[in-house]
Amino acid sequence: MGRLNNILMEAGGIGRNEDGSITRLGFSEDYFQALELIKKHMESLGMKTEVDPVGNLHGILPGKDPSLKSIVLGSHLDTVIKGGVFDGMLGVAGAVECVYRLKEQDIILDHTLEIWGFNMEESSILGGTFGSRAITGMLDPDQPGYAEKLATFDRTPDDVRTAKKDISKYDCYLEYHIEQGDKLDSADIDVGVVNGIVSVIRYQVTANGVSNHAGTTMMPNRKDALVGMSKLIVAADARARELDDTLVFTVGKMSVAPGQENVIPNEVVATFEMRHMDKSVTDQFFADIQAAAKEIPNCTFTFKNTVAKYSTPCDPKLVRIIDQVCSELNISHMIMPSGAGHDANPMAHEGVPIGMIFVPSVNGISHHGKEWTEPHHVDLGAEVLFKTVLTLDKTDRK
Amino acid sequence: MGRLNNILMEAGGIGRNEDGSITRLGFSEDYFQALELIKKHMESLGMKTEVDPVGNLHGILPGKDPSLKSIVLGSHLDTVIKGGVFDGMLGVAGAVECVYRLKEQDIILDHTLEIWGFNMEESSILGGTFGSRAITGMLDPDQPGYAEKLATFDRTPDDVRTAKKDISKYDCYLEYHIEQGDKLDSADIDVGVVNGIVSVIRYQVTANGVSNHAGTTMMPNRKDALVGMSKLIVAADARARELDDTLVFTVGKMSVAPGQENVIPNEVVATFEMRHMDKSVTDQFFADIQAAAKEIPNCTFTFKNTVAKYSTPCDPKLVRIIDQVCSELNISHMIMPSGAGHDANPMAHEGVPIGMIFVPSVNGISHHGKEWTEPHHVDLGAEVLFKTVLTLDKTDRK
Repeated sequence: MGRLNNILMEAGGIGRNEDGSITRLGFSEDYFQALELIKKHMESLGMKTEVDPVGNLHGILPGKDPSLKSIVLGSHLDTVIKGGVFDGMLGVAGAVECVYRLKEQDIILDHTLEIWGFNMEESSILGGTFGSRAITGMLDPDQPGYAEKLATFDRTPDDVRTAKKDISKYDCYLEYHIEQGDKLDSADIDVGVVNGIVSVIRYQVTANGVSNHAGTTMMPNRKDALVGMSKLIVAADARARELDDTLVFTVGKMSVAPGQENVIPNEVVATFEMRHMDKSVTDQFFADIQAAAKEIPNCTFTFKNTVAKYSTPCDPKLVRIIDQVCSELNISHMIMPSGAGHDANPMAHEGVPIGMIFVPSVNGISHHGKEWTEPHHVDLGAEVLFKTVLTLDKTDRK
Repeated sequence: MGRLNNILMEAGGIGRNEDGSITRLGFSEDYFQALELIKKHMESLGMKTEVDPVGNLHGILPGKDPSLKSIVLGSHLDTVIKGGVFDGMLGVAGAVECVYRLKEQDIILDHTLEIWGFNMEESSILGGTFGSRAITGMLDPDQPGYAEKLATFDRTPDDVRTAKKDISKYDCYLEYHIEQGDKLDSADIDVGVVNGIVSVIRYQVTANGVSNHAGTTMMPNRKDALVGMSKLIVAADARARELDDTLVFTVGKMSVAPGQENVIPNEVVATFEMRHMDKSVTDQFFADIQAAAKEIPNCTFTFKNTVAKYSTPCDPKLVRIIDQVCSELNISHMIMPSGAGHDANPMAHEGVPIGMIFVPSVNGISHHGKEWTEPHHVDLGAEVLFKTVLTLDKTDRK
């Protein structure tokens, strides 16, 4: 194994659980230990480093032309509970690998290159993409109750405010990440060129019927909320498969009331989640679900929108450049959306052009100790990232 | 309103809640107050009365021929939480009404007539049909933990043992009850002649799939346990309706794991309950469910039988007599099974011939403050019960 895989294995030893998984939650001791490891690599490469007040790591490699905006490479340093080696860390260590290659090849870029290792991208009481939302100023630390939450990590709203950067000073943001899905692995394709991050739309769906005795109420007289909800789930699942092959639909949570073995349910509440790049597709899908609900007898449905994160496109010029780099390197690749959210979302939200490079997750497994990406894929993605940086440095994208 | 309806309204005033429903749980103060009310009616009619050690009320009207076995009429004196006026009390008060009529008409039966008002027929920590299971000796008070449960009601295992009667001394048991379902009401039929109490068969059904990221796992690669379970519920519901019009099928309880909005469920556990008079029908239905489960892709199902209370037939001779009484009285009636369990179950289980008379529940509502049976139906059922007792008294059924 080469250098990058060695860095990953070294970082993966921090917060390692007995079952082989890794727990390196934001702000934890293990988190800061991994941060220090990366920081040392950066410093050995002559980069200036900084840990900001919300626990993000910054490494700076000055370029030849201070008038040019900086190119930022990054991802997150934290993991979920019992997560894997690659999720997040690949993008930070991969960026460090780029600097190793620049040094080895005696290349000094025109642009300043920055590496950002974000804190708490994974869900927590501070919300997902905490570190990147703090930097971009998307996070309002004065929202009710937030100061108390920050205090549990010994931080204050002022720390969040101080971490904010003038985001207009950055040229672009590139994130190298594992796919966390099975598209690349099942298609046997080496690299995914991400064209955008899909929307996440969620509805709380309530089915209402009438409770009654499970023994004495004959079938034709029932208004069974669970049978109704089951029919809607089956219909929505079939419709999702039919409508578009990149649309996904999930019911992950459901409750049945009154929840007694011998009572017909009168209320079932479920979360319907749909993700896709195009709003028109999720809009169509939701309309189809509502239409299907109207056809289901003995049950009434109500829909309440709870989450509406619309899709985040990658910068078309960056997509084209990464695509060209892959072609020039003769790497099998495909243009694809990201089904999961990333630190790239807040960057794009605040106007920074973003690009993402995916490598295959074996069997699509992620957020799990069995998360795995083959070493040659790890190196291949880093090569694409490196060549993309070189190209970007010489490209006038104004 | 006549006498019987007045007794019901009087008893219904005990344990009355603000919303009009009644809570008269076994062993409660309200329970014993209602018991005393009925006991006074019995005593005013010259019956000997007794309250046994487990809180059942007994009233005895001696017959002319002490060598004949006693005829027993009965039902329960308790209600569920927020129950109605008629469930249980109708059968006890209706039996008292029969004695009123005997006295008015100066009839002395050959057989001794007993009225049993049972305690705790409804579910409790002591299990359903507590009082009738104690009398028939079906209840084992020495089962682990039962003494502690009895102690919460200031009773002991010895009380249960003492309450047991030599059940071979009884000729038959007749229970007059509301239907608690909607068959009679929807068919506009006045009396149900019960031919048996349906079985209750329950399975714990587990659907297993594989958890994965709701955003990155494409639809064709999913093994979604909730989609699988939904398909099985829809299939089983349709099959129940098709197989037999007195078969009922209910999924009243269900849990979804891991239960996160953005994670595909890997395990769904549900209770499948089926009820019917014929074991062959529930056996066929269960086989059909298993076959349907095998056809559902991306999901494996396991079935664990948790309850198997087989059906309890009423005594065919008693069914014929009640049927004839209805015909002679020109009452519209139908032979029908009982979808709910009753105190008649333990009696039949221990070898006493049982018969049951049902009157309509308006809209099939029961176990609810809105439980209602029209006064003329209350009187009509009592008339059938009275005439049945007179016929039985003169019938040689050996």
